[in-house]
Amino acid sequence: MTFMASAQAAERRDPQSPDRQTIDQAVAALAAKFGNRLVTSRAVREQHGNTITWIENQPPDAVIYPQSTEDVQEIVRICAAHRVPVIPFGAGTSLEGHVNAPRGGVSVDMRDMNKVLAVHAEDLDCVVQPGITRKALNEYLRDQGVFFPIDPGADASLGGMASTRCSGTNAVRYGTMKDNVIALKVVMPSGEVMSTARRAKKSSAGYDLTRLMVGAEGTLGVITELTLKLHGIPEAIAGGICPFPSVEACCNATIMTIQSGIPVARIELLDALQVRAVNLYSKLTLRETPMLFLEFHGSEASVAEQSKRFGEIATEFGGGPFEWTARPEERTKLWEARHNAAFSTFTLRPGSAMIPTDVCVPLSRLAECVAETQRDIADSKLIAPIVGHVGDGNFHLTLLIDMANPEEIKVAKAFNERLVERALAMDGTCTGEHGVGQGKMKYLLAEHGAPALEAMRALKRAFDPGDIMNPGKIVALG
Amino acid sequence: MTFMASAQAAERRDPQSPDRQTIDQAVAALAAKFGNRLVTSRAVREQHGNTITWIENQPPDAVIYPQSTEDVQEIVRICAAHRVPVIPFGAGTSLEGHVNAPRGGVSVDMRDMNKVLAVHAEDLDCVVQPGITRKALNEYLRDQGVFFPIDPGADASLGGMASTRCSGTNAVRYGTMKDNVIALKVVMPSGEVMSTARRAKKSSAGYDLTRLMVGAEGTLGVITELTLKLHGIPEAIAGGICPFPSVEACCNATIMTIQSGIPVARIELLDALQVRAVNLYSKLTLRETPMLFLEFHGSEASVAEQSKRFGEIATEFGGGPFEWTARPEERTKLWEARHNAAFSTFTLRPGSAMIPTDVCVPLSRLAECVAETQRDIADSKLIAPIVGHVGDGNFHLTLLIDMANPEEIKVAKAFNERLVERALAMDGTCTGEHGVGQGKMKYLLAEHGAPALEAMRALKRAFDPGDIMNPGKIVALG
Repeated sequence: MTFMASAQAAERRDPQSPDRQTIDQAVAALAAKFGNRLVTSRAVREQHGNTITWIENQPPDAVIYPQSTEDVQEIVRICAAHRVPVIPFGAGTSLEGHVNAPRGGVSVDMRDMNKVLAVHAEDLDCVVQPGITRKALNEYLRDQGVFFPIDPGADASLGGMASTRCSGTNAVRYGTMKDNVIALKVVMPSGEVMSTARRAKKSSAGYDLTRLMVGAEGTLGVITELTLKLHGIPEAIAGGICPFPSVEACCNATIMTIQSGIPVARIELLDALQVRAVNLYSKLTLRETPMLFLEFHGSEASVAEQSKRFGEIATEFGGGPFEWTARPEERTKLWEARHNAAFSTFTLRPGSAMIPTDVCVPLSRLAECVAETQRDIADSKLIAPIVGHVGDGNFHLTLLIDMANPEEIKVAKAFNERLVERALAMDGTCTGEHGVGQGKMKYLLAEHGAPALEAMRALKRAFDPGDIMNPGKIVALG
Repeated sequence: MTFMASAQAAERRDPQSPDRQTIDQAVAALAAKFGNRLVTSRAVREQHGNTITWIENQPPDAVIYPQSTEDVQEIVRICAAHRVPVIPFGAGTSLEGHVNAPRGGVSVDMRDMNKVLAVHAEDLDCVVQPGITRKALNEYLRDQGVFFPIDPGADASLGGMASTRCSGTNAVRYGTMKDNVIALKVVMPSGEVMSTARRAKKSSAGYDLTRLMVGAEGTLGVITELTLKLHGIPEAIAGGICPFPSVEACCNATIMTIQSGIPVARIELLDALQVRAVNLYSKLTLRETPMLFLEFHGSEASVAEQSKRFGEIATEFGGGPFEWTARPEERTKLWEARHNAAFSTFTLRPGSAMIPTDVCVPLSRLAECVAETQRDIADSKLIAPIVGHVGDGNFHLTLLIDMANPEEIKVAKAFNERLVERALAMDGTCTGEHGVGQGKMKYLLAEHGAPALEAMRALKRAFDPGDIMNPGKIVALG
């Protein structure tokens, strides 16, 4: 397979797109200001409409690399004057077409805005630019005894992570981006810079503009600075894996673990097929059976106690033995394998494309939802390994699809529709952490109902009346 | 002193208020539907403009007691048709004039909407109506091994707590209302019912309408149902008090405790004057010196370890001895005393009125902010005991004021202005948890800047173009 969408993709555009002349004028105005930091080559443009999923590539008209908030203001003002779309771009790891340009426009690549501006270790916070990735940030922080916990697997940019309200493996203990962003600096569609909040740990001073921007996917403004919550690096970390006779047993052990108040830092499900892919890709010899990967953070005494208590719960549900270790090199190897799970799936079907799924249901419905979904996979004859951030009730399937086979694509899409319907019927959501982008727009009405969708449209209209900020994502103004 | 504002208060109204005839028509239409669940007696109206602070009472024109979401829809539709204000009312414990009716209108008292609709212990959540108070909810939940942790001291209603984004003593461990509301049902100014989210633990499905409504103080809609996060009752709870030589030492010990990653559940500062008030009110014999009240939640081994580690930190900063206990009756007595702290202050000056303050600064600035504030109290010759949720950098002073003395009121107000300025200069907020109401509106521009304030106004206009939802709070449209 290839992670780059086809270079042959036709540039199909929405009818609301600006005309050629308008675009050319805007690009010329930007080029006059930004010189060779504006790029219009086809290869670079296509990279910036890139997704690693089945969604069609819709490249922007130009890519620009700002170096400051002021640069972004300039870009937004020029685009707004011409009513040309502005599409913020981080690391390009989003999965639902968030960085596509269905109406053309300018991709604002935050590559050069990747600095750590301040670390306040005493306050457990830091201020960063949006282009820094989570791995680079944690590398930077390591010596100061603090870390940023949100971990979506991919080495995403912090601006992108905030914009999709992402979470990942640590969310069960540390929350999602919603819980770990303290304040944002945002260039609004008017070109003005809005600061959403102060650096205090909490505030009741008016509407929560920070949380409004987290998860807005760049449709309300461009994030140019983030103040993030940090956490002390735990004194001790223990991790391990635990085999179970069934996915259901994994889920039930998870529910019991959470209910028992064990402050587990990570509790991740892999089904047997996913374990096989991990073995193939990471050259491991794990037993090919449903499995939980776990991690505990705390004092040495506390992680030992947590591990022991989890082991007892596992036994209760027919699982085990729970093998755990506090030795960093062994833990790291396991978690690298877990992080490579999405990539490893391609070993199961070389040359295939991926349709990712991302439902999240109340914990009590998780076992049922996963079991029904497994039956559906079997009935549909799909190849679709499962991983899950099961402590949150969130799980993903990677549907491995032959994109040359229209029938197979149809079956996979219908399967995904049923999966979303199943999750919604269980009071769940169509996306736990990937975001809406283009791919999930069609589910929002069923999930939220007409009044909420109208409220979202009203928000979009209030902030971006010209509909220039990443248009055609989350809600359409029509 | 009295907690009831004067019955003699003049009904001074904003110029935007509807005229008498319009109000009479709206009230008549409501009376036709709701019979004796609509009340217009002066005493009841004044109760509903009530604040326990110095803010002038501005009673509504009528008070109405809905029993269902449909009732609230009916009320909002009738009020909207006449453009008469709708003011949601919970337990009336807010401190900044949130329930005042500066333009008259109808106070919607949630007294009868006080049911627990569902408890999902497996999912650690519950669904409640907005009128239930936090004590009643925890009473209801007790047998199920779960609790709702947010604890603002007063026995506030859950709808009010969500609306002010409140927090309190447990926030250092369990977060604020922002972190503990999963979903809301809201009657919008159009009369439609909006559901903000599903019951899944997390979601990336569009704009965060839940967080937009949390802290909106009823200015965007009326909350009629809340889905709340619950927590398992800890296996063990230990609590205790620790004297320190100075407020600064208390703050520094707090900073070190948080930085060390001790998952303290409560860490509360009382200055010497506040300890004296507590002694007088709760008939205790605590040493009248700055003091931290603490609580630890976890397994028995864990709370013992946390207590021991905190004791070591206290010693490092010249504090101690740290006396702690896991015996419920002793803990309860101490925490009752802490919860009565606000009320107890009146023992220091019987007959006085209270001007509450509520700043929150980054933890690293807390000691400095409190020390400067103490000097200012002394210089201003005010009586103003301090309590603080210091793990969050949040502290309150209770200014005890003789309302018959205009000079003293002036001094107190000027002091509060300086306190807010001091907090803002330290990257803090004018309100950590009380909310904006009427009292803090004037600080929002300095705190957030013009673009954020304009964004808040745009939000208000988008959701409530007729400006009927609790008008004259948070941001003024006029």
